[in-house]
Amino acid sequence: MTDFSTPVTGPDFSRGEGGLLPAIAQDAETGEVLMMAWMNQPAFEETLQTGQATYWSRSRGKYWRKGEESGHRQTVRAIFIDCDADTILLKVDQVGAACHEGYRSCFFRQVDSVGVRVVATKLVEPTAVYKKS
Amino acid sequence: MTDFSTPVTGPDFSRGEGGLLPAIAQDAETGEVLMMAWMNQPAFEETLQTGQATYWSRSRGKYWRKGEESGHRQTVRAIFIDCDADTILLKVDQVGAACHEGYRSCFFRQVDSVGVRVVATKLVEPTAVYKKS
Repeated sequence: MTDFSTPVTGPDFSRGEGGLLPAIAQDAETGEVLMMAWMNQPAFEETLQTGQATYWSRSRGKYWRKGEESGHRQTVRAIFIDCDADTILLKVDQVGAACHEGYRSCFFRQVDSVGVRVVATKLVEPTAVYKKS
Repeated sequence: MTDFSTPVTGPDFSRGEGGLLPAIAQDAETGEVLMMAWMNQPAFEETLQTGQATYWSRSRGKYWRKGEESGHRQTVRAIFIDCDADTILLKVDQVGAACHEGYRSCFFRQVDSVGVRVVATKLVEPTAVYKKS
């Protein structure tokens, strides 16, 4: 380790595999970590300009304005980047369930030495908010 | 989207580039997001077994027990995985500064339409806790 003070002008998308950086969404009020998704530069700029969290869906290969289908939008209150400028943290106002499985947070499973268990309550049934396609 | 209920037995390291999954460390008391680093299966198992957060450093190409050099250890209180089992969330007791630049959290820079600015106070000078090598 040699250089501790990294001059930074914004997220450095060149550091991410395929130009994608992890973006963590955290509930601006409660501090609950809601989800982690991926952003490329256009998704980041769209988020910054509109104030609505927009990601790049690796599985679907397209931009994804969070909540556009479910209504479970994320209004961005503040954006932070980490020391290496290769991870993004969004503080958001989350409508409804952040998780496509119907939980408030995607991190609804706890892992310990015994195994994995669900530790949250489902807010909505996914079939009620997503079209089957 | 077809399958909403993913059976999960733990993190699915096969889903990560090079077997690495993002691991978010969150302060167990305050909820502050401290850092994001990478874990492979051995790092995860070491973390689970020892209760001390252990990552895989992509830049140094080796395992990295958080705080082994600086003393700024992370004792893990709880581990969660997300709906796709490809992101890990650790709730930790953080000693000192999580960030190698001397800040409590790596997310000490805020980004808005005007630019980037430091919004936190440095806890320690990095040169005081890391050897120059």
